[in-house]
Amino acid sequence: MRGIVPQKVKGFRDITPRQNILRQLIIDRATEIYRRFGFSRFDTPILEYAECLGKYLPDADSVAQGVYSFKNPEQEPIFDTNGKELRDAENRVLMENHYVAMRYDLTAPLARVYAESLWQQHLRGEIQGKTNLFRRYQYGPVYRFEAKLDPGRFREFWQMDFDTVGAEDVSADAENCMILSQALENIGLKRGSYLIKINNRKVVNGLLAFSGITDKEQEMAVMRVIDKLDKIGIDAVANELGKGRVDDVSGAQIPGLGLSNNDVDTIIQFIKDFEKHSSRIEVINKLKSKPAFENSTYKEGVEELEKIDNILRDLGYNEEVAILDPGMVRGLGYYTGPIYEVESLQTYKDEKGRERRVGSICGGGRYDGLVENLLGVKVPATGASIGVDRLAELLTLTGQAPESFDGPAIIIVFDDELMPLYQKTAMQLRQAGIDTEIYYGAKRGLKHQMAYADKNNCPVAIIIGGDEAQKGVASVKNLKLGKELANSIADKNEWKSKVQKEVELSKLADEIKAMLAQ
Amino acid sequence: MRGIVPQKVKGFRDITPRQNILRQLIIDRATEIYRRFGFSRFDTPILEYAECLGKYLPDADSVAQGVYSFKNPEQEPIFDTNGKELRDAENRVLMENHYVAMRYDLTAPLARVYAESLWQQHLRGEIQGKTNLFRRYQYGPVYRFEAKLDPGRFREFWQMDFDTVGAEDVSADAENCMILSQALENIGLKRGSYLIKINNRKVVNGLLAFSGITDKEQEMAVMRVIDKLDKIGIDAVANELGKGRVDDVSGAQIPGLGLSNNDVDTIIQFIKDFEKHSSRIEVINKLKSKPAFENSTYKEGVEELEKIDNILRDLGYNEEVAILDPGMVRGLGYYTGPIYEVESLQTYKDEKGRERRVGSICGGGRYDGLVENLLGVKVPATGASIGVDRLAELLTLTGQAPESFDGPAIIIVFDDELMPLYQKTAMQLRQAGIDTEIYYGAKRGLKHQMAYADKNNCPVAIIIGGDEAQKGVASVKNLKLGKELANSIADKNEWKSKVQKEVELSKLADEIKAMLAQ
Repeated sequence: MRGIVPQKVKGFRDITPRQNILRQLIIDRATEIYRRFGFSRFDTPILEYAECLGKYLPDADSVAQGVYSFKNPEQEPIFDTNGKELRDAENRVLMENHYVAMRYDLTAPLARVYAESLWQQHLRGEIQGKTNLFRRYQYGPVYRFEAKLDPGRFREFWQMDFDTVGAEDVSADAENCMILSQALENIGLKRGSYLIKINNRKVVNGLLAFSGITDKEQEMAVMRVIDKLDKIGIDAVANELGKGRVDDVSGAQIPGLGLSNNDVDTIIQFIKDFEKHSSRIEVINKLKSKPAFENSTYKEGVEELEKIDNILRDLGYNEEVAILDPGMVRGLGYYTGPIYEVESLQTYKDEKGRERRVGSICGGGRYDGLVENLLGVKVPATGASIGVDRLAELLTLTGQAPESFDGPAIIIVFDDELMPLYQKTAMQLRQAGIDTEIYYGAKRGLKHQMAYADKNNCPVAIIIGGDEAQKGVASVKNLKLGKELANSIADKNEWKSKVQKEVELSKLADEIKAMLAQ
Repeated sequence: MRGIVPQKVKGFRDITPRQNILRQLIIDRATEIYRRFGFSRFDTPILEYAECLGKYLPDADSVAQGVYSFKNPEQEPIFDTNGKELRDAENRVLMENHYVAMRYDLTAPLARVYAESLWQQHLRGEIQGKTNLFRRYQYGPVYRFEAKLDPGRFREFWQMDFDTVGAEDVSADAENCMILSQALENIGLKRGSYLIKINNRKVVNGLLAFSGITDKEQEMAVMRVIDKLDKIGIDAVANELGKGRVDDVSGAQIPGLGLSNNDVDTIIQFIKDFEKHSSRIEVINKLKSKPAFENSTYKEGVEELEKIDNILRDLGYNEEVAILDPGMVRGLGYYTGPIYEVESLQTYKDEKGRERRVGSICGGGRYDGLVENLLGVKVPATGASIGVDRLAELLTLTGQAPESFDGPAIIIVFDDELMPLYQKTAMQLRQAGIDTEIYYGAKRGLKHQMAYADKNNCPVAIIIGGDEAQKGVASVKNLKLGKELANSIADKNEWKSKVQKEVELSKLADEIKAMLAQ
């Protein structure tokens, strides 16, 4: 007979109090910086019409299954390209259950917000020239159905984005990089422990165009292959751009894009030329020295990088913070200009003692076409995102997460008859600003209650039995101090005398405050 | 030809900066109180296996469509009641695409968390006697597909719950009511502007049992009808309990539960007996005077209410805060003991000038059977929830939401050549702790930039043109003061002299800080 197993959906997870504290710390510290640069919080729903999100996931092959998508339970009209309801021969409105999808990032919904705000104007043909500025930050979960789920990866994870829609000037892109740097440092990363890598899609597109590759889909396919560089290495990239290759691990035949040897050589040589990090100015000069500099897109891309470099240098962001990396392309389909990725340089040891890195913790760039896809009007836009959960993982693995946190003071429950006294005592403490829990568990043994207090990081336990109640006192155990002294004091009586104390009920709040302040 | 209309999914909404500030205020203030009572934050995913959530929605008729549910894109094994994989005749594991659902509340997922934590022990037959205490708070969106969408209602809305699993003692229920009261007052509601209504499902179940109604489904059906009391009135409730009725508005025939006239009379008389609010002690005495007091469930329910009343009175929570309301039953299917609902007593005028109330803003109660449904082991549990968005609506409609908020200082952009100076100026201000935005919009007219500043509540605008740059000064407009003086000062020059000021760039941060502090 069929049964129910209580379990989380595969790839999803619960977030413990400790993890929540870390996640919230990241969000609060980043919020401070995002607001410092003038962004306001604007939230969008978890669910969107699938057609409004578009298909821009890094792994094109998995797009169909890469998103949690389903048919909305209600029928709604189908529209034509002018926003008019489609009708059948009998003039009845055509209806269907639209596909809806759980958002796979926070950028595509933002494009929907902006396009929606101008939609009526657009239908009336009133949008002329440039459109309004809109800046917002947002954080929350996003959803990716990755068929292969690597350990430590999840299908629900948090991102924290900030975006500027309506800004042409790449100064905004330079600012994005500064925001990422300041946010990461405000969260606690040391300068030099992360590196912002900057490139420009125009440079790569221009290089491809110079080789005669101008088809948009072909362009994107090339980007996706180059994006695998860190994972599969330069030779595999070369093969995948050309005739295809056999995967080392799975033995699967991976088809190639079929570029000519010449084109593959151009791309691979370009990547190799910039493999070694050098100063931003050297990279710019080398980019200028390439034959592709004749291509106007390429040239524009290089000049934008030069402008970004200038601003960053002017404001004290040198190569310790940000480098130019022409081989970095990012996998997402919607980028059109400057792109950036932040790599953590810190290492940690995995369970087998191997040195590991978390890798990319932030990413972003310019996506001047995303709103246009929905609105039919060109709207420049740029933004970036902190991978909140990835960053939390980094802080945890490298020992930078807050060590511990304090639970509430706990009132041990001995005697149901004394519940009114426990309640009054708790009220006094709470009124004095002390987080206080009355133990309501059904298991009443003292050992069990103390284990519960320990598990929940309670700093103080308050014990009132019948005798104490009559005397108007409580026995207070300083659990925090107890833990600290556990190793240094061997003598049980001495330990007890330091850690346990009889306190008059009227002085309880003051006494506990003093203990917590230690 | 089919087109894409950029729009939100029907019933979903975006949250503006102003709404976010209000929502966050509610969450922060409630968090303070939840933590004060010893709860820690524990989060669960948005998505759960549908079978783990169970079907406990208020409106039983809409259960099938009441939840956003879809088939998980991957195949997984089917289990039997012992948690073993089911197999076919050839011993192959039976697989299917399980249904997953977007959570419709935060309680059902909590039951999953608790049951999951004990599942292996349960399978090994190791759970004996009482189970552990687990307390957590959580906030976030929940999802209800209500086929009929009233104005101002949404299919995605936020709740903020706190729960105690593993507590038998109804002292925890008394505490829940105090937490709701303290949280609401910490958020800003005045004492007397809301009312906690308390009842006990055992009282109602006992009353029905005394009339011979013991079937669980019948019991629940009666609760759901009584729950409509505020909406449809006492006569319609009577008809729906008996032979059925015709709906006033839709004209639809609504089938009745077919209770005998005698049973309907008992229930209706009971409701009428308690229609008028009286003191808690009077309600308890009246409950005790009923013939149903012979029923053990009813008696237990009344005694629990008495205990709750005692604790509340002891700690200063009188009838201004909380009353006993035996006619209040709540629609959710999982309650088993004390239940509570918080009603806002404040009125506001709707667009037609009619006095309106927001109604219920919090709810909760004891659900001793919810974990058992998943785990097969009895686990007592109780908790409550603040309707975050409903409360935000109340604060907004009654003029209790924060009046305004300050956007960043804004640097007006005149001249691309001056961008490096704008950047440096912004950096100085940000380093001094002033939230500062450089205007990156493509529309560059001064009027347009000032309109943007106004829309985003910028308190200060910093204007640096070529002349100012050469002199090393900025022209600073105090927009906040300007708004305040706009009505009182008619003379444009006088107004300008008070609101606009030339400031040396080196003194800019201090000057703006002084303006913001005013």
